[in-house]
Amino acid sequence: MEYKKTAGNVCAPKGFTAAGVHCGIRKNRNKLDLALILAECDCSAAAVYTTNRVKAAPIYVTMETLENGCARAIICNSGNANACAPNGLENARRMREAAAKALGIPGGDVIVSSTGVIGTELNVSVIESALPAICGGLSKNGGNDAAYAIMTTDTVHKEIAIELEVGGVPVKIGGIAKGSGMIHPNMGTMLAFITTDAAITPDILHEALSECTRKTFNRISVDGDTSTNDMACVLASGLAGNALIEWKDDTYLEFLGGLKYVCEHLAKSIAADGEGASRLIACEVTGARSEEAAERLAKAVISSSLVKTALFGADANWGRVICAMGYSKAPFRPEFVDMAFSSSKGRIQVCRDGAGLVFDEALAKEILSEKEIAINVALSEGDAHATAWGCDLTYDYVRINGDYRT
Amino acid sequence: MEYKKTAGNVCAPKGFTAAGVHCGIRKNRNKLDLALILAECDCSAAAVYTTNRVKAAPIYVTMETLENGCARAIICNSGNANACAPNGLENARRMREAAAKALGIPGGDVIVSSTGVIGTELNVSVIESALPAICGGLSKNGGNDAAYAIMTTDTVHKEIAIELEVGGVPVKIGGIAKGSGMIHPNMGTMLAFITTDAAITPDILHEALSECTRKTFNRISVDGDTSTNDMACVLASGLAGNALIEWKDDTYLEFLGGLKYVCEHLAKSIAADGEGASRLIACEVTGARSEEAAERLAKAVISSSLVKTALFGADANWGRVICAMGYSKAPFRPEFVDMAFSSSKGRIQVCRDGAGLVFDEALAKEILSEKEIAINVALSEGDAHATAWGCDLTYDYVRINGDYRT
Repeated sequence: MEYKKTAGNVCAPKGFTAAGVHCGIRKNRNKLDLALILAECDCSAAAVYTTNRVKAAPIYVTMETLENGCARAIICNSGNANACAPNGLENARRMREAAAKALGIPGGDVIVSSTGVIGTELNVSVIESALPAICGGLSKNGGNDAAYAIMTTDTVHKEIAIELEVGGVPVKIGGIAKGSGMIHPNMGTMLAFITTDAAITPDILHEALSECTRKTFNRISVDGDTSTNDMACVLASGLAGNALIEWKDDTYLEFLGGLKYVCEHLAKSIAADGEGASRLIACEVTGARSEEAAERLAKAVISSSLVKTALFGADANWGRVICAMGYSKAPFRPEFVDMAFSSSKGRIQVCRDGAGLVFDEALAKEILSEKEIAINVALSEGDAHATAWGCDLTYDYVRINGDYRT
Repeated sequence: MEYKKTAGNVCAPKGFTAAGVHCGIRKNRNKLDLALILAECDCSAAAVYTTNRVKAAPIYVTMETLENGCARAIICNSGNANACAPNGLENARRMREAAAKALGIPGGDVIVSSTGVIGTELNVSVIESALPAICGGLSKNGGNDAAYAIMTTDTVHKEIAIELEVGGVPVKIGGIAKGSGMIHPNMGTMLAFITTDAAITPDILHEALSECTRKTFNRISVDGDTSTNDMACVLASGLAGNALIEWKDDTYLEFLGGLKYVCEHLAKSIAADGEGASRLIACEVTGARSEEAAERLAKAVISSSLVKTALFGADANWGRVICAMGYSKAPFRPEFVDMAFSSSKGRIQVCRDGAGLVFDEALAKEILSEKEIAINVALSEGDAHATAWGCDLTYDYVRINGDYRT
């Protein structure tokens, strides 16, 4: 389903302001490195976190904040992940308390997040010094600065805002995201901060975010490395005036559709801006015996280094796709596999019933030379389907991750 | 344990001859593309195969051959994988029967293997035409040609032969291997063909090969893509004259040690010659609560694209190592992790109790600029340990896999 896009991002829904400043964690004075999002009232809040056993300190502190399903603000720095870092928990708590004090709200209402270098102590003093300026700068126009402030090696900022009706009442959902960039000297992080003015209970909001994450953020891969700092969170101010969503009824489904659209947009933006990426790759698996099988197959394909390098070369190398499906551990019958490649330039069938077809190599190259391409896999085994998104593996990926300290 | 290396490879043990020729599957006349290994008597035989759900036809045909645990010959072509290919099973059987006929042995005694292009029909006629020449060329000096004939984009041929005592009797084990190379237009394959003159029953030989594979071939990764054609097999002629190994007694352990040494040598040779690789990377995990945990951690580290690119840049980026450990799904306590990097240039500690140390960056760079480097992870949680081997991720990997058709 398509939704009506509106201007802005996290400030589009009623009740939210934001700002972004340079506080000094990053040396480059032109790079914003501290973002703040504030709601004017208590919000239902929910988050999903990295599954990495090594979790950054702000992840644990945010878990504490969200125990009661309620929050009012998000503070996030780039340039230092505060993961495996000396005094990690103390510093993440200090960052949260300082933000709360500056905003005049309880510490338990602040979500805290970091992205950047692993293993180096976070300089909270520079954040504290910047709080008067960033709090003073909060505005309905500040979402853009916040989106820039959370970027690391991202080449574009990622934002969206949509309008939909929930129970006949206009509701907005907005979001910003970052990833998968690289910070000296460490790994990328996926962050997504989403706001809405829908009225919804914390429990149901968490269900909606989990459901959407499973089908969007959890279906992208840039390099298979799950960061220590990944987080997606959503704040719902309730100011839209819709009847409170507290059950999985029709209004929940209306809201869920919009939230999924926002998450999918941000997820695809992250995949398309993967380190060194020149193309967004979607792998659509249809006709699977279960959604889980379809998802595993699609994710194995978009995660395969051999598929990713082939598509960098615009090479219709379908044997690598079926090989990746084969080691995915998902059930499927190779002899039922049909496969095509497609883009805005057309569609070309390359494999039928598990065996190769003779196809027009020049046309295939033209199709695969686009910025957004799809691998269409049809299994003829059932009705389940899933799509996963990734990007190609390029010289620039190696340069960004291998050469940056030399 | 170290073993005495001897000259040659699969022909070093008593009872084996080999040959390699150019039959015409590959266009380049200077590239050997057909290998043959023959035993002068019936051998105990065992093999392990790819776990990919998409298996090449020769894998199934070899499974048939080895149902009775007995074989006399191995025939292998490079240039075409006979996977997802028209008439795959028919052609693999035809290749096996033709070889058997030329050698004057039963078809059920021939192991058949292919590596190369996926999805294209195998031209068995050229193999049949080359059989008189390759059978006529079988000799004790032919192992080298066989090792070259199974290469694809390998840059060096891989071979070893060792001598050991089993129950006081001199025994030899020899082997050749290939991988992980790339063939137009498809994926790499890992093949290892091992011979021995030890007397050992097929069942116990299979146990030994499985045990060794788990700790050697299954602990290497070049790009995480498990091929459709992977196979390791071993033929035991029994001509050494040792008392038949039929139980897991001391002589079994003597033989197992030698076989593991051979497998490890071939496995490390494959990892070191990974596509585009400039360094062999070993990740040694010690102090783990179980061998399985240690293995999972070590494999996650050497499979991480971010670790691989960092080590291409000789960058002591330990945060990426602990991050990969974190998403490995193996149990460990991050706060117990000690980590060092080492090579022939020395050793440098970079992390203690899960937190970063200040270290000499220049020395780290010198250590990591060697051809063989190790990541040493100590967990202080138990006595279990495991090592996995991989290689760095370089511009050449992207060039080989992305540019080869342009």
